[in-house]
Amino acid sequence: MKQRIHFNEVVTRDGFQIEGEFVPTEAKVRLVDALSQCGYAKIEVTSFTSPKAIPMLRDAEEVMGRIRRAPGVEYTVLVPNLRGAERAMESRADELNLVMSTSETHNLANLRMPREKSFAALADVIRNASGRTPVNVSLSTAFGCPMEGEVPQETVLGWARRFADLGVRGVTICDTTGMAHPAQVARMCEEAQRRFPDLQLTLHFHNTRGMGLANVLAAVQAGIVRFDGSLGGLGGCPYAPGASGNISSEDTIHMLQAMGYDTGVDLDALLQVARTLPQIVGHEVPGQLVKAGPSTQLHPVPQAVTELRATL
Amino acid sequence: MKQRIHFNEVVTRDGFQIEGEFVPTEAKVRLVDALSQCGYAKIEVTSFTSPKAIPMLRDAEEVMGRIRRAPGVEYTVLVPNLRGAERAMESRADELNLVMSTSETHNLANLRMPREKSFAALADVIRNASGRTPVNVSLSTAFGCPMEGEVPQETVLGWARRFADLGVRGVTICDTTGMAHPAQVARMCEEAQRRFPDLQLTLHFHNTRGMGLANVLAAVQAGIVRFDGSLGGLGGCPYAPGASGNISSEDTIHMLQAMGYDTGVDLDALLQVARTLPQIVGHEVPGQLVKAGPSTQLHPVPQAVTELRATL
Repeated sequence: MKQRIHFNEVVTRDGFQIEGEFVPTEAKVRLVDALSQCGYAKIEVTSFTSPKAIPMLRDAEEVMGRIRRAPGVEYTVLVPNLRGAERAMESRADELNLVMSTSETHNLANLRMPREKSFAALADVIRNASGRTPVNVSLSTAFGCPMEGEVPQETVLGWARRFADLGVRGVTICDTTGMAHPAQVARMCEEAQRRFPDLQLTLHFHNTRGMGLANVLAAVQAGIVRFDGSLGGLGGCPYAPGASGNISSEDTIHMLQAMGYDTGVDLDALLQVARTLPQIVGHEVPGQLVKAGPSTQLHPVPQAVTELRATL
Repeated sequence: MKQRIHFNEVVTRDGFQIEGEFVPTEAKVRLVDALSQCGYAKIEVTSFTSPKAIPMLRDAEEVMGRIRRAPGVEYTVLVPNLRGAERAMESRADELNLVMSTSETHNLANLRMPREKSFAALADVIRNASGRTPVNVSLSTAFGCPMEGEVPQETVLGWARRFADLGVRGVTICDTTGMAHPAQVARMCEEAQRRFPDLQLTLHFHNTRGMGLANVLAAVQAGIVRFDGSLGGLGGCPYAPGASGNISSEDTIHMLQAMGYDTGVDLDALLQVARTLPQIVGHEVPGQLVKAGPSTQLHPVPQAVTELRATL
């Protein structure tokens, strides 16, 4: 029996939110619908934030209303507060994904409030959603903050504990700016699983410094079975302009399948979708697999070799 | 005690050989001299092939004659045949690096002869160099051939055995087109070390499908302590146009150092050299670390956060 890996595609939320040009609603809906046919366990469709804060995702209700939901796929959305949670639940989101940073400076920079204030606000959301919609919490900068540097593992797992005690279904441990290395990932994953055997633990990696798939390997070796990824490696953070962003879903799924894991994803179908992405966003994307093809896709034998063989 | 990793920089050979524009001899010499100050265990300087076969490296003698050799660094060169070996030894190369493919089709395509003929020619070189210069053999397509597909591990290790029996000092197991995945790498490395405890075993990875550093991780976990890398990730193969080439030395060294390995390399000095590479070759290169900076390099706290803190 192959080990099952649950993959969460975040391109239309985490990828699109920092794009320079608005991706038309129709293109978003078509992309989600195409991804729905690929076999993902979960798709993070959009974000119910203020249209002023993230204008790229100002069409959250319309996108959620128009997508065709595939059986077996969970449709999750990012939610920053009570108002967003109400909108998300009205849109019949299967899950609310809340977010705060484990670094005080990063939380102040991104969410404009101290971590304790974020926690109190998210706790309200969790209590309000209780019995209606499952909640996941994404903990940012869990492997390092671009301004503070190291974030102690104890700090990260401390926040995870406080959310677990509120009854969330899952926690995503996020390497928001690609600072994690595999030894650190292995330690974090082992300890998180030991402390939270009943939580759905997801790992979210970026490839900012080229370590994305190495970190996936370290996590999967440690027993993690849930990952976020972004089609084409779209997304990223403003602290590393020009560098890669999120790990590429197709590159990650290709590696895991080659190693014998069951991701549930139809890689050929996924690559067809991935090939449309540069046109949707109007620029090249970092994913490698569209350029190189899967390692199982062979090249024809050159004519010169055939001729040479005939002379041997 | 930190585990020592021996790093071999191949940019001026493997990287430059497929460049479109000739890199001037002076630029090559200056680059090798700068790399010599970074703490590498080995530098593959150039190739003593026919100037017609690889015009980019037609200045091999001049480069070898003009570089300033740093104590503790080995200067190795690629050698295709007896004639090349004589030229290399006249140029006082510290090592001869021979190459053949473990896939018959790839050997026919690249070297224009069957593997047995390559082996016989390289065996002549090894006997001729015996007692004069140590020899390493690079075995190409060891994790898959872009035309044949799978190359059985037994085939790869069979060729390694035949070269070991001839008395070579080392064997490099090469993932020439980026087809290796970590589970395959782990199996290969474990078995190769079991069979050849006295050989210097080096692993050579490409990042064609994004798995380069994951494969380094798998190899280092299996006990491998020698790696090839190319500054900026320069190099590659014609079967995946647009995709990444060799693993980036600076990205790899950054990861290994973050994990606690002793690579001997001064990463800050190396990044200074890496930043000059796009100008030398006249185009962008795939390495991420120059764009993102090391994970220890922190960003200033934004003014808005300082102001916000003052109000709390």
